Amino acid sequence: MSGETSLAGLKVALLSPVSWPSPPAGYGPWEQVASDVAEGLFRRGLDVTLFATGNSRFSGRLEAVVPVGLNEDPDQNADVAIALHIAHLFERAGEFDLIHNHLDWKPLTYALATTAPPLVTTIHGFSAPPILGAYYAAARRSFFCSISDADRDPGLAYLATTYNGVDPAKFTFVEQPGEYLAFMARFHPEKGAHLAIELARRAGIRLKIAGIPHDRAYFDEAIAPHVDGDAVQLLGEVRGAERDALLGGALALVHLTTRPERFGLTLIEAMACGTPVLGAAMGSVPEIVRDGVTGFVCASVDEAVGRVPQLPSLSRAACRAHVAATFSIDRMIDRYLDAYRTALRLGTPPPPTAEQLRWRAHDWWDRPMAFTDLPPKPATRPRV
Amino acid sequence: MSGETSLAGLKVALLSPVSWPSPPAGYGPWEQVASDVAEGLFRRGLDVTLFATGNSRFSGRLEAVVPVGLNEDPDQNADVAIALHIAHLFERAGEFDLIHNHLDWKPLTYALATTAPPLVTTIHGFSAPPILGAYYAAARRSFFCSISDADRDPGLAYLATTYNGVDPAKFTFVEQPGEYLAFMARFHPEKGAHLAIELARRAGIRLKIAGIPHDRAYFDEAIAPHVDGDAVQLLGEVRGAERDALLGGALALVHLTTRPERFGLTLIEAMACGTPVLGAAMGSVPEIVRDGVTGFVCASVDEAVGRVPQLPSLSRAACRAHVAATFSIDRMIDRYLDAYRTALRLGTPPPPTAEQLRWRAHDWWDRPMAFTDLPPKPATRPRV
Repeated sequence: MSGETSLAGLKVALLSPVSWPSPPAGYGPWEQVASDVAEGLFRRGLDVTLFATGNSRFSGRLEAVVPVGLNEDPDQNADVAIALHIAHLFERAGEFDLIHNHLDWKPLTYALATTAPPLVTTIHGFSAPPILGAYYAAARRSFFCSISDADRDPGLAYLATTYNGVDPAKFTFVEQPGEYLAFMARFHPEKGAHLAIELARRAGIRLKIAGIPHDRAYFDEAIAPHVDGDAVQLLGEVRGAERDALLGGALALVHLTTRPERFGLTLIEAMACGTPVLGAAMGSVPEIVRDGVTGFVCASVDEAVGRVPQLPSLSRAACRAHVAATFSIDRMIDRYLDAYRTALRLGTPPPPTAEQLRWRAHDWWDRPMAFTDLPPKPATRPRV
Repeated sequence: MSGETSLAGLKVALLSPVSWPSPPAGYGPWEQVASDVAEGLFRRGLDVTLFATGNSRFSGRLEAVVPVGLNEDPDQNADVAIALHIAHLFERAGEFDLIHNHLDWKPLTYALATTAPPLVTTIHGFSAPPILGAYYAAARRSFFCSISDADRDPGLAYLATTYNGVDPAKFTFVEQPGEYLAFMARFHPEKGAHLAIELARRAGIRLKIAGIPHDRAYFDEAIAPHVDGDAVQLLGEVRGAERDALLGGALALVHLTTRPERFGLTLIEAMACGTPVLGAAMGSVPEIVRDGVTGFVCASVDEAVGRVPQLPSLSRAACRAHVAATFSIDRMIDRYLDAYRTALRLGTPPPPTAEQLRWRAHDWWDRPMAFTDLPPKPATRPRV
């Protein structure tokens, strides 16, 4: 940031996913981040071309061959649309100084066919173990950014951790919260709504839960029976002002996951409102929450129960200041500009270290980071 | 062929599918043709690199990143494996004088990222209408070959029709056939086993049917009840010598399809044995069968019934001679070499004509050629 070469005028091609427009109207976290990065770079004076759906909005140059989001028009053939979207960028690769990919592994395989320009890929998450095979095979052609230190694959080299950011101005700071805890996530065992309910019951405090049923059986068995409209209140999916009010009015956001979180946008949204986080000590949580300052990083539900009485002692102003200092969109852009500078200086990614190569030969089912869809471990290690 | 420039020494990269090894042990028609083309070019002195599965066999240079066929190891991730297989070739595109693609539309989207060398794609069949969108978008980067005149999309320009070929020496010529008709295809309504049964019953002749149940309900309802081991004999899947004997011993091969056939390898295999074809007047059949010489091209089952008594009047030697003259592997290679010469001379495919552009805007559900999986026509025309 401070004093480094300006990258104003740098010709950057930014590849967004096409499941939703960029930015999305509702759900669409990858498109949201790609859109925020594109706008942020544009504000810093870079010459940005955003490759996204035709119904996207961007202050700079928008390029599109897929008219609307794949989830908005089921008549579109996703395989064909995504391939043409990626090819549309790579056919013009020579026009850019740098390509920034937010669309997972497929673009890496196209990049192998071109020698220029440098490619930076933000890995928003590994969907399934076999995807790693594509990352390894194309690692000589792309630099990688992780969205937390925790969500790194030890077989890959990373340029930087480029945390996602939010604009604090979009969240209302609340100095005096209400007397309740909040839970806001998909209803799936890994998101831990059942642990939030256990915590609230044992701590004797009201809980408001918001989200969409992702795992219906789990919701029906582990969540719904506890909803009584008083001790446990169910709000469904909340957006906009309602979401802002729920987060800001809470004594804390409860985030007792059972699977490592990759980043956790809701955590920084809560802190932007001044609301601390009671989070599980796994995944990105210890990086995002300053333990004892902007919340508590808890090793167990027992520990979390014990922390509830201490919540009022935390400074809500410190929570918001933490987001402004570390997790703003401006800080995200600073981090990406630093990553771009390194990529432009190196030109080509470094060869893998012996340790990385050892990890690549290791079982994919034995990784520190999280997969979205972890299939049962096969009897033999899959090839590719 | 005659007198044209020799292409000996031409560096050709041949991209085979990876569903099966090249050549396949059993089923795998695209891999079979790709393998036959590669071997044929190699025999003509071209410098051929075959990109196929690692367990493929080739007299020239074999390149592989996918160890075995995707259908041989379900632990492999097909999307990743196919992408890396295609990228493996295109990363080295600059080393070749020409690329010949047998792997459908995906490689076209990779080719857009590279300017050299010329690309020739054999379209072995359009799997579904939306695939045409990919062909149109990449038509400026690839020349196309069809496997019959009938299987052409009117929105595309074609270099040539490059009929598939067989080696007649691999089929036993039978001068005196038995007293039965043969049917050999997947059991699916479009292949018309039920029409073969109707024909045989009405003509009062025995029928031997061979194939695998593709559409189980169809097989159970329309085929199985007619199998009596005498008038209608079911042989299951036949390979090698058994297949050769079944085809060679028949009075005719019955091929009364209900959907246009793209090529029909079984037709030339039967004729290579000296066996004429009773075929439906649609798709490639009129191009492959010389009506009244190597079989009869029939507009209806009624017409086919009337042709049965005339079968013994056809010259079985003429059937075999027709294959040797027109549908041998050598003739297939001649056609491909001609196509290569044109591609090398032109360098870049011609722009689409006004008529082709009109067809591209036309409903995909209203085409002369066949799709493998024709979904119900949507209420609105799909985009992409």
